[in-house]
Formats: sequence, structure tokens, C-alpha cells
Amino acid sequence: MQTLKVELGERSYPIYIGEGLLDQPELLAPHIAGRQVAIVSNETVAPLYMERLSKTLGAYKVLPVVLPDGEAYKNWETLQLVFDALLTARHDRRTTVVALGGGVIGDMAGFAAACYQRGVDFIQVPTTLLSQVDSSVGGKTGINHPLGKNMVGAFYQPNAVLIDTASLKTLPPRELSAGLAEVIKYGLICDKPFLTWLEANVDALRNLDQVALTEAIQRSCQAKAAVVGADERETGVRATLNLGHTFGHAIETHMGYGVWLHGEAVAAGTVMALEMSMRLGWISQDERDRGIRLFQRAGLPVVPPQEMTASQFMQHMSVDKKVLDGRLRLVLLRHMGEAVVTDDYPQEILQATLAADYRAIVAPL
Amino acid sequence: MQTLKVELGERSYPIYIGEGLLDQPELLAPHIAGRQVAIVSNETVAPLYMERLSKTLGAYKVLPVVLPDGEAYKNWETLQLVFDALLTARHDRRTTVVALGGGVIGDMAGFAAACYQRGVDFIQVPTTLLSQVDSSVGGKTGINHPLGKNMVGAFYQPNAVLIDTASLKTLPPRELSAGLAEVIKYGLICDKPFLTWLEANVDALRNLDQVALTEAIQRSCQAKAAVVGADERETGVRATLNLGHTFGHAIETHMGYGVWLHGEAVAAGTVMALEMSMRLGWISQDERDRGIRLFQRAGLPVVPPQEMTASQFMQHMSVDKKVLDGRLRLVLLRHMGEAVVTDDYPQEILQATLAADYRAIVAPL
Repeated sequence: MQTLKVELGERSYPIYIGEGLLDQPELLAPHIAGRQVAIVSNETVAPLYMERLSKTLGAYKVLPVVLPDGEAYKNWETLQLVFDALLTARHDRRTTVVALGGGVIGDMAGFAAACYQRGVDFIQVPTTLLSQVDSSVGGKTGINHPLGKNMVGAFYQPNAVLIDTASLKTLPPRELSAGLAEVIKYGLICDKPFLTWLEANVDALRNLDQVALTEAIQRSCQAKAAVVGADERETGVRATLNLGHTFGHAIETHMGYGVWLHGEAVAAGTVMALEMSMRLGWISQDERDRGIRLFQRAGLPVVPPQEMTASQFMQHMSVDKKVLDGRLRLVLLRHMGEAVVTDDYPQEILQATLAADYRAIVAPL
Repeated sequence: MQTLKVELGERSYPIYIGEGLLDQPELLAPHIAGRQVAIVSNETVAPLYMERLSKTLGAYKVLPVVLPDGEAYKNWETLQLVFDALLTARHDRRTTVVALGGGVIGDMAGFAAACYQRGVDFIQVPTTLLSQVDSSVGGKTGINHPLGKNMVGAFYQPNAVLIDTASLKTLPPRELSAGLAEVIKYGLICDKPFLTWLEANVDALRNLDQVALTEAIQRSCQAKAAVVGADERETGVRATLNLGHTFGHAIETHMGYGVWLHGEAVAAGTVMALEMSMRLGWISQDERDRGIRLFQRAGLPVVPPQEMTASQFMQHMSVDKKVLDGRLRLVLLRHMGEAVVTDDYPQEILQATLAADYRAIVAPL
């Protein structure tokens, strides 16, 4: 088992990574203060792991809360089911909320923990690759609004994160690929040697090689923990974690939540960020293509939806949180392995990026 | 003008108290970072002060958001109106939310600020006595749930609090009295000399004497700021601020939100806390009666609803946040001017307190 520590002063917390951790009560016990525990999961994950985790937490009074599955349910109505369950079972402010599932469950259970009685303890048990390397680290929680993704939420840190790599054996391959989009992202924004490692190991990762997965998750969490530790509330360097996300969110919003997986939208969005970085003269065409090929080998889409026009992109992006006083801030690559956040670029280069023919770009690769 | 500072490290903020502060743009300007400001108010307060405050904030792009008035609307559906307005007007994460109104508006606007894009700047402009001396200080925000009051919320500190004492001239006398319940509470829990001052000045306060009001608000805010500064997240001494609130919340919940004003329920609830403190031998009958008379002179109810039984009280109080692992913690008076939080008392004394004949107790006073 590997243990990482996210350094946030009095809100620091450990991330445990390893095979079979779901069955180890001694890892969770030090992080649970009261006698009540609510395990929040969804209809897909609960049949696989709810009973096992409940047994591991057998020393507590466990309340299982099973939500419908999918980004489409990441809204207030579903969140309300958590509050209803907690209040009906009379959970007090010393309860601990455990998120068992992917990013949507983590975001909603975390936001519920942040808001229930103005904040109760929270533990993340992410079961998808995406949530293991991304949403379980950093304290972002929240729900969607009809007018925008993640528009209502809180920064709220868990007491601990428990990553059982064996849980990836039940993950659909499409979702494994979606998680790899975020793994590749860490290489692109801050860890060029990791990019090279990924090029050598992407097939092993898709084949669920546990050694390769452990290494990839650990390096990804380390990269994210370092960035989050330096900038908890996303005023500076943390924003580089959003590489591909501004374009990607526009895709998700336009297509309707859940049609594209988040990681798929991030992959196509990152291709657009690579294209724009190249048009700014910051990376070479070879470097752009190197990134695109890695996404392709991970089984990810590298072309934005054909039907989306440049003006549709602009419309969706202008309600994105990355807009400050009307100027659209983007995460771009100054070099391979080094991202920057900037609103200082010629508008025509953004327009050309939105209008580029990505089918033609990827055809020869 | 008086300025108090609430000491909370990097989240410290000033409270400005004085007559006519609503018209002074220089007080607010240092606390507004972006160009967008949303003023959240209700249908009662907006016609009185929205135009004036908008004019004071004329240097910014002001979005007025007017909500229905009353505790009955302190729920998710109403909160959603704030998010809808902010998103429709494309407010970004540098926007500032200003609460203009009483405690309900402060709680909802504060919670909206805490959640909108995971947290934006927030300024309180409380216009009722209750919100000026209580809810504008301390960072508690939130909404009600059908199963309990304030069950969903956040601890979220404002950038500044602006208290214009002249706004009390438009406050209905019943609400002024409700605010005095919290003012008297500060005397009871931590400031015996203030109790004596209040006995000498309660009539002046009810007659809107501006000098007396300024003094009472300042001493109340000072008491609360000291307690909150020592214990921001209510793990210890801060809980003494809830004197009368556990009984009072039961009354509010039983009667339906908004039938009794919060301060009225706190007054009757505090009479119950005085009764229980007397039955424990901690204060004398004369001291109990001294407290009851002061509430009476402030125009407040001192008898809980006749139709509420002891078991109904117990039922409502057992979902209260003051329950830790099944034991009901109560705020009681160890002496006049000194409150304690305890779950160490004979159950029969609590039962006797709930079953006492308050009409007979107050009849001779």
C-alpha cells in the first residue's frame, strides 16, 4: 500500500492506494469520529461494493444511501435524497459521509457532507479511475445547474481517501479510458517524464496491469496533491489542472450531460488546447501530434463534435468559471509538460482553434 | 460610526455600525473585488432600500434579486432563484453577493455566496435588529429542510457587515421586540452589567432611541464577535449563544415556520432554560423572575404554546443539532451572566421543565 499526504495545514489528509484496501477497517477507523456512518453510492456501484464496505465498517451504525447513476442526476433533487436519508435516520453532526463510487458520487456526497448541518466528516472511496486520479483529490464538490456544470458547490476536504485499485476490474473499458484522459493531462501540464512513461505503459494500463495502474494513480495523485497543496482555492497554479476542461465543458454542455463522458470531453478539449498552443507557436506540430496519439492509444475521442460551431463554443465557454470580468482565461501549453493560465492571446487564434478541421488533423496519425 | 473587528485570521472582517451608513459608498468599496454586485433582498425590504443601496453601489454593475419574504421561503426553491439570476446575468466567480434584509435573507444570500461557483465574496447589510445583533455575525448560513431548521448550510464569513441603525425606523415593533430577545440573551450568557444596563434602557430601545440602539447593537456584536472569534465552528463556547434555542426551535418547528418569530420562540425558550437552571439550583427564583420580567418589558412572549406537550418537545429536540450520539446537550445558566453547555443533568429535571406550568409562573410578575 502507498500513502500520500495532501498538505493543507489543519485540513491535511492521507490518500491510501493499493489492492484490496476496501476490506481493511483499520485504515478508516482513525478517520471516523462518531458512531454513525452514511455510505453514499449509486445503483451501479452499490450492488458491487456496498455490502463489502458495510461489513468493513461493521463497528459503526451504517446507513446505505443509493442514488440513481449518472451525471444527469448530479443535481439538487438527487442531493436532497441524501439529506432526506440522513435526517430520517437522525444522523447528527458527528456523522461521517462516505462516498463510494465515481466522480459524480464523490462530488454529490462531498457537497452533502459540506452542507449537512453546515459540515460533517467526509471520506472518499473512489471506484473509477477518473475519480481516483482527479475528483477525490482537491476538495472540489458540487452539483450541476441547468445553466452550467458545477455551478453550485463547495471546496470541502475529505478526512481521508481510500483507493482500492482492484475496484477497476469492474469498471467498463470506456470509463477506464475516460480516466486515462486525466492521467495523460498530468503528464502534459507538469510532468514530461511521466508522458514518456505513459507512452510505454498505456497498453498495460488498458489491460488492467495492477502494477502499472498503481504507478499511474500514485504519480497522478502526487501531481494533483502538489498543485492543490500550493493553491487550494484555485486562484493561481491550480487552474492548470483544467487543461482541456473549458473546451470540454462546452462539449458536455452542448451535447447534454452524460452523452460524452467527462474524460472523453476533456480529451477532445485538450486536443483543442494543443492545437491552440501550436498556433501560438508554443509547441511544435510534432508535439501536438504526440499528445493526440497518446489520447488515441488510450481509446479516447480526439475530435470535437462535428456539429458544434465556433459560436456555440464561445457561448458555452462564456458562462464558464474561467471567465474573469468578461475575459476568457484558458489553460494552454507553454511547452510539453508545462501549462500556463492566460487570457492574453489574440482572439483570432482562439477563433481559428474553434474553427479548425480536427478530422483532417487526426487523419494522418 | 463604530467599527468592530471579528478576529478570524485571514477571514477576519469589520462590522460598521452607525446612522446613515447605507449612503456611504467608501465603506463598501474596499470589500468589493470585481465589477459585478448582486443585491439579494425580499419583497418587503427591497421597496424601502434597494434603490438607495444600488445608488450607493453605482460604480458597479448591480443585479437586484428580490425574493419572497419570510421564513417559509427559506428553502432550496427560493435559493435557486438566486442561482438562476446570477447565472442568467453571467456573474463570474469575482462577483460580490450583498444581503439586504433580515436574518432569512442573510442566511440565504450567504449560503448562495458560499455555494455559487464554490464560493464568492459576500457582504451583509442587515436591516432588522435580530440580524444586526445575531445572524450577521458569525458566518452561519443555510436553509431549512422539511425535517428540520437550518439543516443544510455552510459556515461562511462575510467580507464586511454594514449596520445602518436608521433602518430600524421601518421595522415593525413586533420584530424589534424579537431582536431584543437576542440582545437580552447576551446579557444572560456572558455580560451581567449589560443586563443591568438593559433593565434601565429597554423602554428607550423600544422607542427607537438611536443612542441606546447603537450602544445595544455594539455590545451585542462585541459579545458575539468575542465568542465566535474564540470558537468559529461551534465545537465549544460558541454553543452558549444557543441559550433558549433548543427549546425555541422545537416551538418554531411545532408551530410551523414563521408563526412565531424566531426571537419570540427564543424568548419563551429562554424562559424554559431559566426555569431548568433554577430547578438545578444554579440560579434563584428571583433571578429567574428577573430574566422573565426583562423579556416581558421587551414585549416578548414568556410562555411556551399551551398545546405543546413534553413529549412533543422531546421529539422535536431530538433532531436538533445539539444532539451528540443520542445525548441532548442544553445551554443553561450556571449563574446570571454565565452560561454552560451540558448534557449532564437528571432527565427528570428536563421532564419537569417541559411540563412546568409557565402561566402560573409568570402570573404574579
